Amino acid sequence: MADLADLPLRDDLRGLSPYGAPQTTVPIALNVNENTHPLPEIVAHGIVTSLAKAVLTLNRYPDREFTALRESLANYLGGGLSATNLWAANGSNEILQQLFQAFGGPGRAALGFQPTYSMYPILARGTGTGWIGGSRDEEFRLSPDSAVRQVREHSPSIVILCSPNNPTGTPLSSDVITAVYDATDGIVVVDEAYAEFAAAGTASALELLPGRERLVVSRTMSKAFAFAGVRLGYLAADPAVIDALRLVRLPYHLSSLTQAAAIAALDNADILLATVADIAAQRDRLLAALPALGYPVLPSDANFVLFGGVADPPGMFGELLARGILVRDVGIPGHLRVTAGTEAEVTAFLAALTDITPR
Amino acid sequence: MADLADLPLRDDLRGLSPYGAPQTTVPIALNVNENTHPLPEIVAHGIVTSLAKAVLTLNRYPDREFTALRESLANYLGGGLSATNLWAANGSNEILQQLFQAFGGPGRAALGFQPTYSMYPILARGTGTGWIGGSRDEEFRLSPDSAVRQVREHSPSIVILCSPNNPTGTPLSSDVITAVYDATDGIVVVDEAYAEFAAAGTASALELLPGRERLVVSRTMSKAFAFAGVRLGYLAADPAVIDALRLVRLPYHLSSLTQAAAIAALDNADILLATVADIAAQRDRLLAALPALGYPVLPSDANFVLFGGVADPPGMFGELLARGILVRDVGIPGHLRVTAGTEAEVTAFLAALTDITPR
Repeated sequence: MADLADLPLRDDLRGLSPYGAPQTTVPIALNVNENTHPLPEIVAHGIVTSLAKAVLTLNRYPDREFTALRESLANYLGGGLSATNLWAANGSNEILQQLFQAFGGPGRAALGFQPTYSMYPILARGTGTGWIGGSRDEEFRLSPDSAVRQVREHSPSIVILCSPNNPTGTPLSSDVITAVYDATDGIVVVDEAYAEFAAAGTASALELLPGRERLVVSRTMSKAFAFAGVRLGYLAADPAVIDALRLVRLPYHLSSLTQAAAIAALDNADILLATVADIAAQRDRLLAALPALGYPVLPSDANFVLFGGVADPPGMFGELLARGILVRDVGIPGHLRVTAGTEAEVTAFLAALTDITPR
Repeated sequence: MADLADLPLRDDLRGLSPYGAPQTTVPIALNVNENTHPLPEIVAHGIVTSLAKAVLTLNRYPDREFTALRESLANYLGGGLSATNLWAANGSNEILQQLFQAFGGPGRAALGFQPTYSMYPILARGTGTGWIGGSRDEEFRLSPDSAVRQVREHSPSIVILCSPNNPTGTPLSSDVITAVYDATDGIVVVDEAYAEFAAAGTASALELLPGRERLVVSRTMSKAFAFAGVRLGYLAADPAVIDALRLVRLPYHLSSLTQAAAIAALDNADILLATVADIAAQRDRLLAALPALGYPVLPSDANFVLFGGVADPPGMFGELLARGILVRDVGIPGHLRVTAGTEAEVTAFLAALTDITPR
């Protein structure tokens, strides 16, 4: 067996470690912002029925344009969108990779506002796109003025706005999106992976799409839809954006099984999304309980909470793990991130945290 | 709706068309080298059972390392390979994309010997890798001397050898692979998408892996396994190559459904591969019948045949399509490509061809 150093690896990959949260079997996994509620039985049955039908023709390539799935996604989003506005890929990571390939690449750069989703710079590197790590204020907020100033300073080809922001949960106002859009000639991507968990009445960037052909709204079924295992990310945008992605997508990138499962889940969207209100309530419970234990929090519109006041994040991570609870050390000093799980999971987490908190 | 020209697309993508064979519903589709035999019922049942189990935990992310699948693939290949030698992705296109990302990229180039699989230059462009279109002799063969001369001339970071070659079906001798390996410090990829259809006794590049840490053998379940709809490509190589791919792969790139379906299919490999001999017999039938109709052929070790002597390829394509038969115009002057289907499909194809052939 050779060593990686013996291989002609690209220079900019040398010495790096792969992305990835630890995958450990624990009783309570609150580390990767999954929806921890299992699929309702009736939905599982619908998905298996849909998959069983797809199995009959697995010897054939899938529909390369996944038209039926795009129609289902358009129906779900509503707002006058049609299948021509929709596109999907194996997780929103692949959506973003395709956007970077089409609109980034060598000689171009993407700007995001850190701390933000840690895959963005990795996706930039993997596509030869430069990465500019912009900044937020001390409470992880981003104002229109600050965002526009940073866009003007760097003239990126792509701006990524994570809304609400991962790993901080911070909401993003529509003002920032429109101001950034007007300040750039590049592509503006709003990553709404956690949008379904936002407070009622929160506007989606989807409403800003009409007349903005360089605006892309990315979504996923991994979170609110409890569908992380299927890997279905999608976007809504002007059809011209999708024409661009067809030039870089791998043909037949979405398997027949993925298409069948996602369509069946979207047919049952009401049932699947019924857990969202419970999860938001558990998030709000965490937002109230953590400060009472001495761990300050900031607003979160997502299904997770970033809490501060942690003297030794790796130490606390280990103490929680020893109690069967997996959270995430996202690398922000003094902080850990916890997913809002079921009521029982949050109760167990808070009990364990109370147990290990010095008084 | 905007026009693609209005968007800040990368300059090297401007004016291009997306890859893709026409997707048309016809009685007899012999255009994309699928295994046209439907899955045997007993295998379909096994896959549905495996999928039904996976559906229960779809709210969780898949095993990022797909360890069980890699073990199944290693068992299938045999030859002393273990899970540490195996890697998989959504089709062999994604396998190749990851290899280009890790070992190609800006400032580097890949060499292939044309005519060959038309996705190679597209994958190069999508990853910012230069593409060098090398050459074959008039009968589409590649000799060790010619291959080595071209490798020395261009010093590519990646050499891709398609074995047997698509779209020509041409076998590749192991001599070429070892000569190329010795002539380069780069990665040598042998794309064996169609290897299972080769004549009995044909050596696989898998046998060349020991001691060659820069050699990669790529395979797919899309062809012999009748599994194109699942999108499962894989590779065998030194574990260090897989360490490199972990730096560029999208986390959780293989869905839980893909993993479950592929494992169930590999459990039934004997049954699924039972059609391979029939398909090879139909290919041999085409190799004999086409020259008798006036269309010369060259040897094919794959599940398709490239035939020459076609005065007007688009015209003949259209005439066959009008008779319900879809073949492939791969852009080689005077030639069309036809997949070896079932006995009935090949009979229908030959009857239609006889019908439209001038005498």
